[in-house]
Amino acid sequence: MKELLSTALKQTADGKLLVLDQTQLPKKEDWIEAKTPEDMIQIIYELKTRGAPLIGVAAALSLAQFVRSGCSFDDFKGAAEALRKARPTAVNLMNAIDRLLSKAESTQFKSEEVIALAEQIFEEDVSLCDRMADFGAELVQDGEAILTHCNTGGLATVGVGTALGVIQRAHEQGKKIHVFVDETRPLLQGGRLTTWELQKLGIPYTLICDNMAAHLMQSGRVQRVFVGADRVACNGDFANKIGTYALSIVCKFHGVHFHPVAPVTTVDFACKTGKDIPIEERKAFEVRGVRGAFGEVEWSPSESPVYNPAFDVTPVGNISSFVFDSGVYSGKDIEQSDFVEKLKKGI
Amino acid sequence: MKELLSTALKQTADGKLLVLDQTQLPKKEDWIEAKTPEDMIQIIYELKTRGAPLIGVAAALSLAQFVRSGCSFDDFKGAAEALRKARPTAVNLMNAIDRLLSKAESTQFKSEEVIALAEQIFEEDVSLCDRMADFGAELVQDGEAILTHCNTGGLATVGVGTALGVIQRAHEQGKKIHVFVDETRPLLQGGRLTTWELQKLGIPYTLICDNMAAHLMQSGRVQRVFVGADRVACNGDFANKIGTYALSIVCKFHGVHFHPVAPVTTVDFACKTGKDIPIEERKAFEVRGVRGAFGEVEWSPSESPVYNPAFDVTPVGNISSFVFDSGVYSGKDIEQSDFVEKLKKGI
Repeated sequence: MKELLSTALKQTADGKLLVLDQTQLPKKEDWIEAKTPEDMIQIIYELKTRGAPLIGVAAALSLAQFVRSGCSFDDFKGAAEALRKARPTAVNLMNAIDRLLSKAESTQFKSEEVIALAEQIFEEDVSLCDRMADFGAELVQDGEAILTHCNTGGLATVGVGTALGVIQRAHEQGKKIHVFVDETRPLLQGGRLTTWELQKLGIPYTLICDNMAAHLMQSGRVQRVFVGADRVACNGDFANKIGTYALSIVCKFHGVHFHPVAPVTTVDFACKTGKDIPIEERKAFEVRGVRGAFGEVEWSPSESPVYNPAFDVTPVGNISSFVFDSGVYSGKDIEQSDFVEKLKKGI
Repeated sequence: MKELLSTALKQTADGKLLVLDQTQLPKKEDWIEAKTPEDMIQIIYELKTRGAPLIGVAAALSLAQFVRSGCSFDDFKGAAEALRKARPTAVNLMNAIDRLLSKAESTQFKSEEVIALAEQIFEEDVSLCDRMADFGAELVQDGEAILTHCNTGGLATVGVGTALGVIQRAHEQGKKIHVFVDETRPLLQGGRLTTWELQKLGIPYTLICDNMAAHLMQSGRVQRVFVGADRVACNGDFANKIGTYALSIVCKFHGVHFHPVAPVTTVDFACKTGKDIPIEERKAFEVRGVRGAFGEVEWSPSESPVYNPAFDVTPVGNISSFVFDSGVYSGKDIEQSDFVEKLKKGI
């Protein structure tokens, strides 16, 4: 079978499925073997693997492995439904499982076809990332300092990622860049994961607290910002990790280029504008302190009332341009009345 | 002698000097006795007491206690110089010690006079805070949600504080307010100390991460922001805890009132504009994780390069008005050519 390699997920030539335990990063690089769909469910449930595209591919390869082991169609269906429930909000996971189920049914559970589709899902994600990276990297000028928020690279996808993929591509093209990494409170994906990835990639970076970005821009030390997008409304407003909206405002204030990067599949045609995007609120303990494989501390009063929105919504008016896998679009492009139709066709 | 009481410093009627160990907050309320100037130097050095005005008063009362114990003038001078070195950057500490030394010299070390001056320094700080609180509280409307950054209350002064003093006064006046508290990375003064103070005062509050303020403003949930100021330039630009500048920008973007609060003594006449204010850079470990009496964790790669400015500078153009102990002044007031002269006269 195909050897498939990525930053956080591997299928070896002899059929082993290995997942990088992201809860241990950046202190330890532990690869865990997922021998069965049950193993993978546990891995997803314990957040050892994360990132919507990555979870979708991991579930697909896990089902392919199960097919290779000679499971029955009923067992296959049961495993697929169980995997779906491991992270019910992950759209990519739903899509991957739907496609495999439908292929299994339409081919009367022909194992080569199901396996081939799972491997295709892996490769689709790689090329999706490549297209965004190529388009986005064209925006980057030699010598620029680029700031990013949260984690959007090879730990969230099986390709180069979205925003961090653009940064990696610009670096590969030989452009001299420096990256400022927002630590991204409360869950610290920037401080824990983006730093680790940039270090691995040999891209020069500096870690900052989220509230320092504006100060850097004031003295002209940041030229461009790339961020991911969790959900895009039809008018170009988008939801992303909390802190993205504040960043878009300080960029606008300083005239710093601000670009969300996302596949067209992230557009939610049910959302007309950002106002239609619901914001998930998370638990108070995440803000009162920190908790992870690195340890656990609480510095605030245990009873302190907390507001902890996981995402915020950035209006399209704050962006310089949007990097999709089909190209780069300005706010004006997105305002055109036929833009949604173009999006629906994959632009 | 006078009994002097404040949130974090006490002189008891029988002459004991007690300091609240702020490194243990909010988990423990430990009052430690400073029996000698050496004790106080240790307390200041270990950051058990903090806040420029509070340190100045604590040092003054410690010297007064030393005088009461019957020390010689030479010992007094030695202790004063040693206290000065416990926190060389604290302007209030320098001023307090200079005033006591000069009083000791001009009165030929008349103990009652030196002691009376130390107690006067305490009372001056209380009334300074009261004046700012009164002026600032006039701005607050009933029902407003107020956001604040860092810690600026009774743990930094012996009075009600600066920004937090204004908030406390508005609450005392019976105005229904709600306070949003920025946790204030990297040192978490908001999460650790401001939450503790508001809880003690019975003022309703909600703790957030610094990057959530803009999201709250987007949905109209914040009407006004009060922050402190560490140093004010002659044109009204001011330095304050890192993150203040970003906050001023998101306030401007949303039309939310933004007010720094500081005594006139914070104005540095040697600084024409904010560009003349030097920015202290602190150590990398503060950003790679957190460290305190609550525990110690590091979540980022130990070798990650870090930028850690302690302060940033907010231009006067971003403020709605400045609350001084002499009154409230708009950006336009401050632009007047005679404003600096007025400031020098205490306005």
